[in-house]
Amino acid sequence: MRVSVYDTTLRDGTQGENVAFSVADKLAIACKLDELGIHYIEGGWPGSNPRDAEFFERAKTDLHLGQARLVAFGSTRHGASSVEDDPNVRMLVESATPVVTIFGKSWNLHTERALRVTERQNLEMIRSTVAHLKRLGREVIYDAEHFFDGYLASRDFALRTLEAAQGAGADCLVLCDTNGGTLTDRLAEIFADVRQNFGGVIGIHTHNDSELAVANAIAAVELGATHVQGTMNGYGERCGNCNLIATICNLELKLGHSLVGRENVARLTSFANYIADTANLPLANGAAFVGKSAFAHKGGIHVSAVLRDALTYEHVEPEAVGNSRRVLVSDLSGRSNITFKLREKGLDDRLGADARKQVLDRVKRMEFEGYELEAADGSFELLIRQALAEEKHLFRLQSMEMSIRKSGRDHSECQVEMSVETPDGVRRANVAAQGPFDAMAGALRRCLSTVYPAVADIRLVDYKVRVLNPGKGTAAKVRVLINWADHESSWTTVGVSDDVLEASWNALCDSVRLELLRLRQELPAAAVSGNAE
Amino acid sequence: MRVSVYDTTLRDGTQGENVAFSVADKLAIACKLDELGIHYIEGGWPGSNPRDAEFFERAKTDLHLGQARLVAFGSTRHGASSVEDDPNVRMLVESATPVVTIFGKSWNLHTERALRVTERQNLEMIRSTVAHLKRLGREVIYDAEHFFDGYLASRDFALRTLEAAQGAGADCLVLCDTNGGTLTDRLAEIFADVRQNFGGVIGIHTHNDSELAVANAIAAVELGATHVQGTMNGYGERCGNCNLIATICNLELKLGHSLVGRENVARLTSFANYIADTANLPLANGAAFVGKSAFAHKGGIHVSAVLRDALTYEHVEPEAVGNSRRVLVSDLSGRSNITFKLREKGLDDRLGADARKQVLDRVKRMEFEGYELEAADGSFELLIRQALAEEKHLFRLQSMEMSIRKSGRDHSECQVEMSVETPDGVRRANVAAQGPFDAMAGALRRCLSTVYPAVADIRLVDYKVRVLNPGKGTAAKVRVLINWADHESSWTTVGVSDDVLEASWNALCDSVRLELLRLRQELPAAAVSGNAE
Repeated sequence: MRVSVYDTTLRDGTQGENVAFSVADKLAIACKLDELGIHYIEGGWPGSNPRDAEFFERAKTDLHLGQARLVAFGSTRHGASSVEDDPNVRMLVESATPVVTIFGKSWNLHTERALRVTERQNLEMIRSTVAHLKRLGREVIYDAEHFFDGYLASRDFALRTLEAAQGAGADCLVLCDTNGGTLTDRLAEIFADVRQNFGGVIGIHTHNDSELAVANAIAAVELGATHVQGTMNGYGERCGNCNLIATICNLELKLGHSLVGRENVARLTSFANYIADTANLPLANGAAFVGKSAFAHKGGIHVSAVLRDALTYEHVEPEAVGNSRRVLVSDLSGRSNITFKLREKGLDDRLGADARKQVLDRVKRMEFEGYELEAADGSFELLIRQALAEEKHLFRLQSMEMSIRKSGRDHSECQVEMSVETPDGVRRANVAAQGPFDAMAGALRRCLSTVYPAVADIRLVDYKVRVLNPGKGTAAKVRVLINWADHESSWTTVGVSDDVLEASWNALCDSVRLELLRLRQELPAAAVSGNAE
Repeated sequence: MRVSVYDTTLRDGTQGENVAFSVADKLAIACKLDELGIHYIEGGWPGSNPRDAEFFERAKTDLHLGQARLVAFGSTRHGASSVEDDPNVRMLVESATPVVTIFGKSWNLHTERALRVTERQNLEMIRSTVAHLKRLGREVIYDAEHFFDGYLASRDFALRTLEAAQGAGADCLVLCDTNGGTLTDRLAEIFADVRQNFGGVIGIHTHNDSELAVANAIAAVELGATHVQGTMNGYGERCGNCNLIATICNLELKLGHSLVGRENVARLTSFANYIADTANLPLANGAAFVGKSAFAHKGGIHVSAVLRDALTYEHVEPEAVGNSRRVLVSDLSGRSNITFKLREKGLDDRLGADARKQVLDRVKRMEFEGYELEAADGSFELLIRQALAEEKHLFRLQSMEMSIRKSGRDHSECQVEMSVETPDGVRRANVAAQGPFDAMAGALRRCLSTVYPAVADIRLVDYKVRVLNPGKGTAAKVRVLINWADHESSWTTVGVSDDVLEASWNALCDSVRLELLRLRQELPAAAVSGNAE
């Protein structure tokens, strides 16, 4: 039986610290999940907050899913009200989704301390809610909250809640390790017991509080779970939910299950980045399969072995998940790291042994000063291209004066004087802008744009600042990493200074220099000199 | 038999992208690992780079370990040389550590493609290196690199390498999942087979490429492994090594093993932060057990249940690992979140229902504008304290003019005019400093310090900038998060603006206001008014 994938990024995922999506974000993500072949998309809990209610309202007209089924999530009716009158259940019904997931209590601790209802009331709450939704023609998924803790507290109590849900017609019983505390062995034993006693679709929902969420989900699938719940990138409350990305990769690439299909597995790296960007959170470098470092090799031995046979240090092919191999340059680098990078940039045959040695030395010196070239591929590429170029700098700052006034209306102004490597020499610009960084970028553009029109195409994508020596307080040295893009590609440059504006200025200049050197070194000479006139 | 913990943060950990430690860092970390009760500390690979060689040189005189044993790591001798002449083995011997770990090849792919030696040569390399080190009186740990992949390629080949190491006297055989690709089930089967065929100490070394490193290590311990290798915070090449912190917590708190002892387990949160700070990397919010979010509750239902009984949504007590419970404030918050925060700050009884409602409304408005109050506990506390205070602002900026010259010698200057809420009103300061942020902070201090001497104690700890709307390029809106500390505590404030300096200025002012309001609201009135004269 096929294992179906149930994504709750839009509901459980948003419980994660610093994870927030607008309604527009949620609609866009739902479309992408559908395209990715995810079977169930839980959109939110309409009864819990206005944003989720609005999502389901707008979904009725604006969301057109292909294969995926949209799910509204909510609790069983409350103890006091009838199921028809329960406002939470009513909002579930009004969401008009084909699938409804309701969660109920499997742990007597919760019924006694949190809900304060008897076992009989609890079973009746489960039964009546499931039956009501089934009567209305919905597919009903029953999330047995805290199932594993509940089972350990009282196996009978926990199993009776499953019987109640299944007896009332639930289409799927999902065993939840809500607190994320269950070890894999124990979880497997309990799952096997349930599997033996219940037919139909049994699902698994795990959390990562013990760093075991993915292992636990896989253990359940190996014992017969055919429905896996989780979130993209493992977002979720506390330590997060089961990371669907790692789970899908393991199940598809190693256990031969077909969940979303190999073609979609090959899109997971780009998808993981898309979700992280939308959440405005960096994707962890070390994220399994899809992280930037997942196939990055730093140690000299690993690099030379991987160049011979990638299987020696890679458990799957990076291309299978849409990722790619990287070789890092740092003070631990040997020449093979520089060679790999040159090959990557197509500049392999242009730099001799002496020049390579010089680049390596400069890398080590810059790393020592606090630059971080691993993260700044653009700055590293600039080093290489400057080693190839006759005119290394292209332009030089003569003076910069910036004034920022904050009385009445804010006002930043930047006067830049620079010499440009052309026959007519010095240029000046005076630019006023919203903020100092914008003023600097504007002045640089104005000085260079008549000589180098390509400068107009470079735009800033992300900007990060980190203090290097916190002990120095507000006079501390900072490292600025700036991510840039033109029409074709993106790259990062780095600046280090005890002045955040100077560090930014340096990273800005490096980025522009890199773009100009690329054009000179890659376009036919005529095209470049054409630009320069 | 006791399970011993083997830390390789200083060697395998530094293979991680962006992980780098100086020799001084490494010596300091080794001391702390010893204090924490870790049994083996792998200091580095003396044959691989000068930094590691220097570490072992300095360790001879400067490192005084209590219970822990220091380990030097290296490969078996190379195929061509005799073991006495092998430069790598010689450096291991010269490191003069009581323990040496050597790794050898268990996978025929590696002997054939990477090393290019026959099986017989490979076994002889293992045997002679182990025997040589044993003759010199060392404890020898044998790391069977790529053991699980090697076993699947050829069980006999892999087992013969273990026989060679054990026959030559190795004190411990460590099965390594070097590429991190082995699923838990498979790993357990293979481990059980080895356990059945080999006596003595068998260890486990896993990587996280499939997000299963911790699960795999625990599975091995449950099958009889009595030696676990890993790194703090899971640092390591690609997706990292087995995270010793989560592994220790699970084994100690859930399986009843005694590894480092409960007292040391309760220091793990602070230890995880110490290692992250030393590596200059943020500790992941969602890190199991020790992350800032590990016991953070955001959803309204969870918060109210946790306030009744923490067990309902926490798998272990946060205090057991030295962590603490947190309740997050965001636009998903209900009043119970605000109530918890007030209680936390000891201000529970000072803010009425109307004021709470106003605070909640202001939170939601600020979140909408891009502030991130979850991350900025200081800014949130300021909201509360401003609701309590009559003089909310304490001081106001009248004008600020900053000029930054970059011709010849760099020069930043900041003129600030502000009104301070005292009888004598307006103050002016003109400060020159290294960078603009330092100049702003200096001017603010100078304006306020005669009235509020406490301002002198506040210092900057960390400073982070993030672009909110990348589409806008260099004119984008940025969010600045600044972490501050005084002698007693630390807090974070947030500023949002399209000007990085203005955002920084706002966060700076908020931090100072918070400190001043704290003093006014917590000290006896006399002490505060004394300061104000």
